Amino acid sequence: MHLKTIINCAMSADGKIALKSRRQTKISNEDDRKRVHKLRNSVQAILVGVETVISDDPKLTVNEKYVKSPRQPARIVLDSDGRTPSGALVLNGAARTIIVTNERCRKTFPNAEVVRCGRDEIDLEKLLPILEKKGIKKMLVEGGSKVIWSFLKARLADEVCIFIGSMVIGGDTAPTPAGGLGAEDENSIVPLKLKDAQVLGSGVLVRYEVVK
Amino acid sequence: MHLKTIINCAMSADGKIALKSRRQTKISNEDDRKRVHKLRNSVQAILVGVETVISDDPKLTVNEKYVKSPRQPARIVLDSDGRTPSGALVLNGAARTIIVTNERCRKTFPNAEVVRCGRDEIDLEKLLPILEKKGIKKMLVEGGSKVIWSFLKARLADEVCIFIGSMVIGGDTAPTPAGGLGAEDENSIVPLKLKDAQVLGSGVLVRYEVVK
Repeated sequence: MHLKTIINCAMSADGKIALKSRRQTKISNEDDRKRVHKLRNSVQAILVGVETVISDDPKLTVNEKYVKSPRQPARIVLDSDGRTPSGALVLNGAARTIIVTNERCRKTFPNAEVVRCGRDEIDLEKLLPILEKKGIKKMLVEGGSKVIWSFLKARLADEVCIFIGSMVIGGDTAPTPAGGLGAEDENSIVPLKLKDAQVLGSGVLVRYEVVK
Repeated sequence: MHLKTIINCAMSADGKIALKSRRQTKISNEDDRKRVHKLRNSVQAILVGVETVISDDPKLTVNEKYVKSPRQPARIVLDSDGRTPSGALVLNGAARTIIVTNERCRKTFPNAEVVRCGRDEIDLEKLLPILEKKGIKKMLVEGGSKVIWSFLKARLADEVCIFIGSMVIGGDTAPTPAGGLGAEDENSIVPLKLKDAQVLGSGVLVRYEVVK
């Protein structure tokens, strides 16, 4: 019995989640947005890294367009050094927000609880039981690529959902769903088990279990 | 009526075609290999870039394990400066081989015809009619990522087939199906039209038409 973690992201057919400038571009479609907002409403928390907050400034709320009377899960930002801008939309008070920093950081944020966890880098293995005690049973990890790779590398993700948009973005340096250092050799590759693949409007949704 | 070009590649669920060291790793499965060898046998040529020849040294032939009495399509290497090693397996005489260099290059190769085309970079738009005159009606482009992006960017590809292996490789620098400079902005993204998505053993095969 532990916190269930689902990774969810959208990529182009050639595995890019944004332009090489890191600027977001529309990869998802209306069917997928509907799915994501319903999925968000079914979990207790949505987690992203601070890089995603800084570059995309997402609200991370459930849109009433897709879900009537949404429950609004907590928003969690992995932010070792406390770089979340005080004007970020995740701090707008529209849902519970938890900023996770390392143990040295002393910053506080408006409209947000703070959890200090890990010496320099955030210790994910220590963090999950803390979040569980806060009532989080199921959590969505929405990015960015460094955070997704951290969860997969440590086998702390249970499921992976990838929407594949019908376009090619190209580029050696454009960001992909799982970034960071990546697998050094074949033994470090993270095996998945295919659950299903389905056409979703103009694109394809593929779902996996993480093999542990 | 022009030469039909099909891009075919295999990537991990997070859009990687190899480890960050560029070392190949098994992404495809037996069902997909069977499909690829049948596809190879249905075309008149298989094209790759010289980087692929140097790093993977592929034979680019149809394996009799998958196709009885294979027709062995021509092997084409895009190799502006003539860097194909004389011991490369594409020069083993097991099938017709065409090395394409730029117009300045004077190198010749054992067991291979040479086509000179383009001043510095190979001019793909000029090359395709030349290949057509050599009897090539349908051609498979198998990589690497720079070559695939060149074909897509110039809208010289007609179809894209991507096998998605069930694993995550990760890494900011691991190669993806379409590399090179990539799209500079939203207008440079290459739109695809989804043809179908199907489960193929442990993975998923997705096929697209290139929107021109």
